[in-house]
Amino acid sequence: MRRFATERAKRLLLGSFRSSPPLSSVPLCSSASAAAAAMDSAASPVALDTINPKVLKCEYAVRGEIVTHAQRLQQELQSKPGSHPFEEILYCNIGNPQSLGQQPITFFREVLALCDHPPLLDKSETHALFSADAIARAWQILDAIPGRATGAYSHSQGIKGLRDAIADGIAARDGFPANPDDIFLTDGASPAVHMMMQLLIRSQKDGILCPIPQYPLYSASIALHGGSLVPYYLNESTGWGLEISELKKQLEDARSKGITVRSLVVINPGNPTGQVLAEENLKEIVEFCKNERLVLLADEVYQENIYVDDKKFNSFKKIARSMGYGDEDLPLVSFQSVSKGYHGECGKRGGYMEVTGFSAEVREQIYKVASVNLCSNISGQILASLVMNPPKVGDESYESFDAEKTGILSSLARRAKALEDAFNRLEGVTCNKAEGAMYLFPRLHLPKKAIEAAEAVKAAPDAFYARRLLDATGIVVVPGSGFGQVPGTWHVRCTILPQEDKIPAIISRLEAFHEAFMEEFRD
Amino acid sequence: MRRFATERAKRLLLGSFRSSPPLSSVPLCSSASAAAAAMDSAASPVALDTINPKVLKCEYAVRGEIVTHAQRLQQELQSKPGSHPFEEILYCNIGNPQSLGQQPITFFREVLALCDHPPLLDKSETHALFSADAIARAWQILDAIPGRATGAYSHSQGIKGLRDAIADGIAARDGFPANPDDIFLTDGASPAVHMMMQLLIRSQKDGILCPIPQYPLYSASIALHGGSLVPYYLNESTGWGLEISELKKQLEDARSKGITVRSLVVINPGNPTGQVLAEENLKEIVEFCKNERLVLLADEVYQENIYVDDKKFNSFKKIARSMGYGDEDLPLVSFQSVSKGYHGECGKRGGYMEVTGFSAEVREQIYKVASVNLCSNISGQILASLVMNPPKVGDESYESFDAEKTGILSSLARRAKALEDAFNRLEGVTCNKAEGAMYLFPRLHLPKKAIEAAEAVKAAPDAFYARRLLDATGIVVVPGSGFGQVPGTWHVRCTILPQEDKIPAIISRLEAFHEAFMEEFRD
Repeated sequence: MRRFATERAKRLLLGSFRSSPPLSSVPLCSSASAAAAAMDSAASPVALDTINPKVLKCEYAVRGEIVTHAQRLQQELQSKPGSHPFEEILYCNIGNPQSLGQQPITFFREVLALCDHPPLLDKSETHALFSADAIARAWQILDAIPGRATGAYSHSQGIKGLRDAIADGIAARDGFPANPDDIFLTDGASPAVHMMMQLLIRSQKDGILCPIPQYPLYSASIALHGGSLVPYYLNESTGWGLEISELKKQLEDARSKGITVRSLVVINPGNPTGQVLAEENLKEIVEFCKNERLVLLADEVYQENIYVDDKKFNSFKKIARSMGYGDEDLPLVSFQSVSKGYHGECGKRGGYMEVTGFSAEVREQIYKVASVNLCSNISGQILASLVMNPPKVGDESYESFDAEKTGILSSLARRAKALEDAFNRLEGVTCNKAEGAMYLFPRLHLPKKAIEAAEAVKAAPDAFYARRLLDATGIVVVPGSGFGQVPGTWHVRCTILPQEDKIPAIISRLEAFHEAFMEEFRD
Repeated sequence: MRRFATERAKRLLLGSFRSSPPLSSVPLCSSASAAAAAMDSAASPVALDTINPKVLKCEYAVRGEIVTHAQRLQQELQSKPGSHPFEEILYCNIGNPQSLGQQPITFFREVLALCDHPPLLDKSETHALFSADAIARAWQILDAIPGRATGAYSHSQGIKGLRDAIADGIAARDGFPANPDDIFLTDGASPAVHMMMQLLIRSQKDGILCPIPQYPLYSASIALHGGSLVPYYLNESTGWGLEISELKKQLEDARSKGITVRSLVVINPGNPTGQVLAEENLKEIVEFCKNERLVLLADEVYQENIYVDDKKFNSFKKIARSMGYGDEDLPLVSFQSVSKGYHGECGKRGGYMEVTGFSAEVREQIYKVASVNLCSNISGQILASLVMNPPKVGDESYESFDAEKTGILSSLARRAKALEDAFNRLEGVTCNKAEGAMYLFPRLHLPKKAIEAAEAVKAAPDAFYARRLLDATGIVVVPGSGFGQVPGTWHVRCTILPQEDKIPAIISRLEAFHEAFMEEFRD
């Protein structure tokens, strides 16, 4: 199943990304205005066939057609309650914890509020409203900002004092030093990924090794920058194992086709696959990148999200340094985000990349590209520093902070297990463990009749299933075709993020739907 | 002077962008780590000659070499006070008001702080710390956010309720309706400009008409997306007039070379040139774009920054609608930012683009690209809604808000005039009025000896002047070569943003430096 050549796999991948024509009768995204809808594209100076083909090629299923349809259903529920067999839309399509009711970490928000309105720090009432260590931290942060100006553009890489705190946090995590000059603060991890793709990709002849399944930011960014996605398949039968033999095979195959493979993307913990890579595996990967002279792009945004006792997160930098490899041995970029972890501050758009192993002159180019956009948002920068340097034992807020943090993480672990078990109980469904991250990626062994029914409406079978699930239950999941999968297999990605008290009802709805679906299409 | 063919002008432009090799003996940006500095690029898997040539080509002078040098001087001043003939670096290179001491608008920051930490809204002490209408506005905003979740990813275009407020603000400004579905909230204006360039540019054969001088975001973005900048020169002798005859000439010239010109960029009020375009001129431009089937990209981020009584800001949308032109007549995108205006909230990275006149299917592509990055930061979204819907007469905060706003704007007007007069008093310097925006762009008629001295160190003459100015006074300005200028002319861009009490000393330092410079190089 996994012997597809690069080109063919790519075609198949793209094919499956594209094989879902609109199922709804409303082909427009909900945002298109009436005026736009009435316009004839061909008559416009910007007809569809005149725009950048890289934009046309790019796909992003996490907010694709199924979500647009869900938004329409939500509007219908609001305007006409009772019009559907469910009362609310449950957005399990995207890792967006606070949209489903998760509360922000109090300490983080106290500090952000104080930094947004520093005159509060001079008022006596403030001490009744904020914890003492949040006040102290806000002062500390303001003192690190030139002129205490939280409304000023910062250094293009982010405020130096905040980068210092982040570097200290990385060093404490890894046991190896980190350099604040290696940190580039960004508006979430996505712009950082784009920056690296922009740097590395010159043409279609440049390839980026990406896991399949993958988070579609990678396929989208590679498409937008005109490169080639070189897929390597994770082994579902070994819990989405990442095998060096597969990397080697795909690398050689791509090279034999004239592709210059520049980089390897690894997502650990995995998205959409939820596996946590073992230390030995990480070492093999580092060795592979070093030997093959690849840039290791390490998506480590789920580093705090580990749900099983026998696995822990190890950063690639820690592993590389523990092997004795330094800057001169391999270029390594680690992406981190404030959107994930126990805090899930998606709306704040904070994040950073730690860039090591690049020459000074190439770093200067990265700095230049960062400068064109001036800087990332300061609240996101502050939050990134808090995430990497949270309250410590002894701080006034520590106990309440730790209670909030462990409460969220242990609840996520229970939710992951409950949903994993539920999927595994469904007929024809197998689901690996969510060891980490925020997702389950169950495999659907669909009956032939269901596949034919999907083909009849020109939909991918998993898109057909997801659409049926949404229409019957209000649960939004993303078809596996949006992430890539071994051709002929079908999956969905479902977040573990609905609040815990809703999980039993979700499972009941899922079970009832699935039973009816199988009944309808049983061979 | 302005008869340069597109290709030649482009070459000259790029030539002048590039003609400034490092003047300092430290070729690395200050951010390069020691490890990176020690690395040999050629030995790295990512040697400089293996990165994307579009990245190499891109230049962004506003944070270019002169700023890197200034940062180094600042460090030297800190570590060794008295080591330079000035006590502080005055960053007049970038429109970053709060970095120079401008205070944020109280009402805006109150609302942001409350939205960052909504539990404050339930506390009695809060009423002693925040104005009643800030509290009311925070509730109103929270109620517009699904689940009141300020930490959730929003709709890819931004929170609907905030887009409603922005659309209302646009309608009130223009007297013509605005559609919230046309608004795309972005992290400042820069990502919005990139999105449009990404959409429109397919190859080097696609051209974008840009003013010269221009804000270098445009040249950088066109370079990064691999298109051709088609320059049109603003007429310095008529106060940086935008002449339709020049647009036509450059358009025809580009077309004769096989360039498909897709779009016209207009920056109004002008950056770096400070002019405010007259209503009749705007009408001609709209007519030109309609007839020539160009997308009008309207950089209107300085719409609040007008300093002369006989000029007012008119949006292109208002002008187009007042001419009877609707969506079907021309594609028009207006960029707005929270970084400029009287508020100058650069660090918040808020902004929006209003996208009109595109077909539904092309808008869907814009929506898709916005979705890949999920959403812009929520604080920036909130701030954009506040900027377009500030306190009104009768609101509790109105008087203090209005005092802050008019205080800043009238001070900016006085500073603009004082610096303009000062430049015009300098020997061999002529300076147009800053009718709006935040910059002066004086022309330097440099002595032949100075030009030769610059050539001797392989610097552009205005870069040579700017470097000398920095070394003598600590004042950071950007050489005109970074914005483009009629070949053979030399300018610098200087912001009007230093605090008012510092302006006399700045002028004295500038005058003393200029006198000594002219004395040294007089022909």
